[in-house]
Amino acid sequence: MSAQAAASAQQDEQARFRESLAHELTRFIEGRAAAMARVSADVAPLMDAISGLVTGGKRLRALFCYWGWRGAGGEVLGREAVQAGVALELFQAAALIHDDIIDRSDIRRGGPSVHRRFGQLHRDNRWALDEERFGQAAAILTGDLCLSFCEEAFTAIGPAAGSTTAARRIFNTMRAEVMAGQYLDILEEVVGPSRARSEAVAAAANVIRFKSAKYSTEHPLAIGAALAGADEELLAAYSRFSLPLGEAFQLRDDVLGVFGDPQTTGKPAGDDLREGKRTVLVAYALERSTAAGAALLEESLGRQDLGDDDVERLREIISTSGALDATETLIDGLSTRAFEALGELPVPADVCAALQGLGLAAVQRAA
Amino acid sequence: MSAQAAASAQQDEQARFRESLAHELTRFIEGRAAAMARVSADVAPLMDAISGLVTGGKRLRALFCYWGWRGAGGEVLGREAVQAGVALELFQAAALIHDDIIDRSDIRRGGPSVHRRFGQLHRDNRWALDEERFGQAAAILTGDLCLSFCEEAFTAIGPAAGSTTAARRIFNTMRAEVMAGQYLDILEEVVGPSRARSEAVAAAANVIRFKSAKYSTEHPLAIGAALAGADEELLAAYSRFSLPLGEAFQLRDDVLGVFGDPQTTGKPAGDDLREGKRTVLVAYALERSTAAGAALLEESLGRQDLGDDDVERLREIISTSGALDATETLIDGLSTRAFEALGELPVPADVCAALQGLGLAAVQRAA
Repeated sequence: MSAQAAASAQQDEQARFRESLAHELTRFIEGRAAAMARVSADVAPLMDAISGLVTGGKRLRALFCYWGWRGAGGEVLGREAVQAGVALELFQAAALIHDDIIDRSDIRRGGPSVHRRFGQLHRDNRWALDEERFGQAAAILTGDLCLSFCEEAFTAIGPAAGSTTAARRIFNTMRAEVMAGQYLDILEEVVGPSRARSEAVAAAANVIRFKSAKYSTEHPLAIGAALAGADEELLAAYSRFSLPLGEAFQLRDDVLGVFGDPQTTGKPAGDDLREGKRTVLVAYALERSTAAGAALLEESLGRQDLGDDDVERLREIISTSGALDATETLIDGLSTRAFEALGELPVPADVCAALQGLGLAAVQRAA
Repeated sequence: MSAQAAASAQQDEQARFRESLAHELTRFIEGRAAAMARVSADVAPLMDAISGLVTGGKRLRALFCYWGWRGAGGEVLGREAVQAGVALELFQAAALIHDDIIDRSDIRRGGPSVHRRFGQLHRDNRWALDEERFGQAAAILTGDLCLSFCEEAFTAIGPAAGSTTAARRIFNTMRAEVMAGQYLDILEEVVGPSRARSEAVAAAANVIRFKSAKYSTEHPLAIGAALAGADEELLAAYSRFSLPLGEAFQLRDDVLGVFGDPQTTGKPAGDDLREGKRTVLVAYALERSTAAGAALLEESLGRQDLGDDDVERLREIISTSGALDATETLIDGLSTRAFEALGELPVPADVCAALQGLGLAAVQRAA
């Protein structure tokens, strides 16, 4: 097979996996929606909200899981890998629903976030009491429901995800670490201002690892591999690729959270600043800005009322300080390490090519 | 064995189950706390909050599960039943954490609720930004973590709780129905005021079934039975006992939510009124009060600033209207149905006695 034909076959397989994944996700949601309808027709908005979230998105985690599976000898479009993808997408949806409440994000993928959807439902129906409280409460419950669904889907993989398997162990670790990492993230928002600026970069880097890097790339890849029976050696080799890649992925996210184009990201400009996120990018800026710049940045972080002009001024401070360049250099270094490790993975050429494609998309993306 | 000796043996077995359950819960939490500590020492407060919730409580669900198991032929202190009890207690803890955010409950079992604990931590450390938001965000994440733990614990039961088993199916149904029921509950708070008063009782009764009755008694009993291999006939017989019992249990809860003694319940007097809960008790009162009484009750429901005098006045309206008596009559009727069905259960006498003890405690309790 020519190199071109091989690339086309690999892309074709990935497209077919996406189709299977979408099909199984729809089937899963429809089944649960039917069961929920037997409780009450009024529960439909919860299912609609979940359905809306899992029909979109980049499928990054499901794809890493699939190619991890294939690289460990799993069969083409294997049922277990598709099912694990369903579970990962449901987990991501659950995390986004609760994340958006925590971060007070009104917008998700260009539309209203789930708590805003329920707020809108309250307003449209002129219901009593407080719209915002109702929206938050309904979104907490929708996220909980989605979290339960993710477990259902993972368990439905069958014996390969049974109680004593490596895949289950990684799945458990993944969920606990994400929640711990998210807590460290909100803790950093409130502790950060009293921390010495010289410690800010290290603190931000630790948050990244657990909140995002392991969860977005390392664990999904490892779950797929473990389901296909990968040994410890292969899992360790996968980590050498996926962990630095995941860190670069999150650093890219942090850059987009400040400098991203709302048209492309589907989120308001400078959202991370308004939320007060203490990212590596912000930590660098605090460390390297002029005293006046750092002071303005420090007092602006977490202010919900920052306007477009304020965001523009903060972007300039961050960029002039050299923080943006420093973050891009970090992303480059991590990407290089990741792609070197990829070259040494004992996996077939088409799996390697697929992982390279996913990796490049993760670190070079604009949304 | 004399009747007295039999009763003592059964109570002794229940005490030993409680000990095993407490032991396994502690072991589970300690294992997870050690893993979390490897992420960061800062995550300890999440584990402390979970630990605080699962070391208290009446163990109602775990006990129904255990006697359901025993009645279906499961062995004394069987590992699977203890492990299922661990999962149910963790699920209950997760539900309480999120429930208290949703209901804005500051107090749980006489101490601060989890979001208040985190608010206190914020205040004690003089951290930046908003104490209340930090408390809520941390509690959302703690509940999510606990929900994941519950699933880990349930899966650790092993093959008897595998992907295609009856126990797993009931466990899945239980979680989804509770969340749907809780949504119906908050929906009723905002929809109720515009509903015809004649429909209020039926609406409240539907909420009860899914939010509480099935979850508190029917599903735990059925999970234990299914783990021991119960057939459909036994599960149906169990339901005829546990479903009316669960409804009576929740109606008792509703009475305590308005008339309970704070010293005994560990919650402020009249908490349900302040939260605007549209219970069967309240629905009866709206239906049966004088026009002036109903109007005052209607405009008071959901007002956070109700003082002790207001609560006292509302109690009088509810009680004078005959709503309290009507609710007690309903509890009596449901209890009678439940205990009649209990008498027909094909289970050993000691299991029957244990279930009767649990049932009586559930409907006659003061806390």
